[in-house]
Amino acid sequence: MLNIGERNPVQKILMGPGPSTVSPRVLRALAEPTLGHLDPDFLKIMNEVMEMLRYVFNTKNQLTMPMSGTGSSGMETTFVNILEPGDKVIVAVKGVFGMRMVDMAQRCGAEVIQITAPWGKPVQPDDLRKALATNKGIKVFAVVHAETSTGVLQPLKELSDICSEHDVLFLVDTVTSLGGVPVDIDDNEISLAFSGTQKCLSCPPGLAPITFGEKAYHVLQNRKTKVQSWYLDLTMIARYWGKERVYHHTAPVNMIYALHESLRIIAEEGRENRFARHRKNSEALSAGLEAMGLKLVVDKEYRLPSLTTVYSPESVDEAEVRKQLMQQYHIEIGGGLGDFRGKAWRVGLMGYASTQTNVILFLTALGNILETMGQKVDKRGALDAAVGAFG
Amino acid sequence: MLNIGERNPVQKILMGPGPSTVSPRVLRALAEPTLGHLDPDFLKIMNEVMEMLRYVFNTKNQLTMPMSGTGSSGMETTFVNILEPGDKVIVAVKGVFGMRMVDMAQRCGAEVIQITAPWGKPVQPDDLRKALATNKGIKVFAVVHAETSTGVLQPLKELSDICSEHDVLFLVDTVTSLGGVPVDIDDNEISLAFSGTQKCLSCPPGLAPITFGEKAYHVLQNRKTKVQSWYLDLTMIARYWGKERVYHHTAPVNMIYALHESLRIIAEEGRENRFARHRKNSEALSAGLEAMGLKLVVDKEYRLPSLTTVYSPESVDEAEVRKQLMQQYHIEIGGGLGDFRGKAWRVGLMGYASTQTNVILFLTALGNILETMGQKVDKRGALDAAVGAFG
Repeated sequence: MLNIGERNPVQKILMGPGPSTVSPRVLRALAEPTLGHLDPDFLKIMNEVMEMLRYVFNTKNQLTMPMSGTGSSGMETTFVNILEPGDKVIVAVKGVFGMRMVDMAQRCGAEVIQITAPWGKPVQPDDLRKALATNKGIKVFAVVHAETSTGVLQPLKELSDICSEHDVLFLVDTVTSLGGVPVDIDDNEISLAFSGTQKCLSCPPGLAPITFGEKAYHVLQNRKTKVQSWYLDLTMIARYWGKERVYHHTAPVNMIYALHESLRIIAEEGRENRFARHRKNSEALSAGLEAMGLKLVVDKEYRLPSLTTVYSPESVDEAEVRKQLMQQYHIEIGGGLGDFRGKAWRVGLMGYASTQTNVILFLTALGNILETMGQKVDKRGALDAAVGAFG
Repeated sequence: MLNIGERNPVQKILMGPGPSTVSPRVLRALAEPTLGHLDPDFLKIMNEVMEMLRYVFNTKNQLTMPMSGTGSSGMETTFVNILEPGDKVIVAVKGVFGMRMVDMAQRCGAEVIQITAPWGKPVQPDDLRKALATNKGIKVFAVVHAETSTGVLQPLKELSDICSEHDVLFLVDTVTSLGGVPVDIDDNEISLAFSGTQKCLSCPPGLAPITFGEKAYHVLQNRKTKVQSWYLDLTMIARYWGKERVYHHTAPVNMIYALHESLRIIAEEGRENRFARHRKNSEALSAGLEAMGLKLVVDKEYRLPSLTTVYSPESVDEAEVRKQLMQQYHIEIGGGLGDFRGKAWRVGLMGYASTQTNVILFLTALGNILETMGQKVDKRGALDAAVGAFG
């Protein structure tokens, strides 16, 4: 006989690469009674979610909705719907999520050309120009806006202009930027994009907002082959989220409630206020870390407000520091991935968790732990610098 | 400026084809604080979910876990992981979900042979024998255990024996059976199966439990090509749910809490008690409907305890009846799909919603509504028959 106890998870301070801490308002929304997926009351909620997603994406795109899976299902949605076997795609690789895009595009039978940048740097527009000059018939260029593995914010406008000149679809991963950093789908002429709910939207993981512009939608409607994934096939799913309400799969009703509430919170705060908050708190964190004597991974102009990467001191076991942060302070941060494994920390300040309180607590906690490990750190300087940055 | 109000959904009685009514205990679990997807406290919860899923599936299969998508993603998971282009598969088609399997298998590049049965009937073992006699090199036979579009419970044992004789993988859709009807993965020698959380598990939609036996796992490990879906690729996901804990995608943490709680409820009740409850309540419902003067779609021996299909009287607008049920009683039932569109209702008694109270309320409500529409129905007889069946 099975005898499994209750869970009772303790509230942690989620300052890693995601999930981020979820607002009690959003948690409460999750617990609202489940409606049928064709209940008129639920259909209204779906419409409102689409409207609010358009606001956060800053787009007029009709086809803007959450996919019923986590952020990676959003990535897969963009590739499987837009690519057919033999298509040529350029992917910018400068971290884990660019590599993931390459893998997914190849699984669609596409020919993938990579342009790269060192981890911790953005890709250069000239590299895209060169790739387009030497490779004809490119259908899509895909890039990660906010690389969660490196903390780099990739400038988009020039890349977008190049795509427009060459009539190439511009596909952008906005997982760690949406809701924390402007993504401006329409102004940046982004053809299609995807995101996740567990970063700057501060909703639990489980949904993947996507948006397809007219050009991408036209490509979708004129495919020669079926989308290889039935589950992620937008030619069908758009008919459930659209006026026809044709059943495809049973929507994850309660997760949609949670997203609805997290988007309501964003609408209340206002996009611009929210972006300013993320910027200010990350600047305070960066100032504090540097004043403490630590070195940031990313040059100032490319730093991602939602995720800061910082080198751990060489003589310190970075995993032990993270363990102490969790045990002593209930703070979760991330370790390095790939090139940065064992060498850097990833500190998120996303959505609900992007607060002055968390910055001060984290700097205090990190300073104390490093000191007990024999590191010489300027704890007072770190806090002074952070508080100074708050202004 | 956006100004979207709160949701405040009213509690409905979900007696359709799913989602079913969710227990307050499960809703409460959804609202527990989100943990990181690699937090040791969360990893423990994951392990317990796997253990309890094995109990409900009645299997020792190590690879038993929930996929991060709804039931249909579970269907896609089984096909994309087990099939490679050019593989031959036999699919039993006797309703919507068999048709969906055909579509998914074809999208994997497989050659699909269909065996069929009329809607409302199970497939016949002899038809599988014939298909195997005339088609060599079949890799998989796929069948729906509980057809949600027809209310038929497909007997499995003989089909399974035939698969064993021919060394064919036996793939079973248990979406509407798991947790309400015995599926007995190991006893039935089912090679691989999938389900959904929003039916007899009475958890909100959003996760898809799957189980792969040794034979299916061996096939997976010896693929010549990559799984065409990155998101559903079990060769990677099994390493996150297994001992290695290699990051693949961010697990839908709060939905996993909900599944954990719904499985705890099942473990407390006990599998056999739960199955008996589903059987008894559906027998009472059937007895009541027949006594009222209505005709059931499925012959007694193949009736699905979790979903009853009943013909609507010809002179009645079946959609109007469903509308009245919702407006007057907050009861949701389903309309017919495919062959049964406009002709039948689908009445679910799943998990938390499979209660004597719901049977009595529904029979009363349906009787009243049909009477106001001028139908001659035996309201008293219906209730007497139902109460008699409860014993």
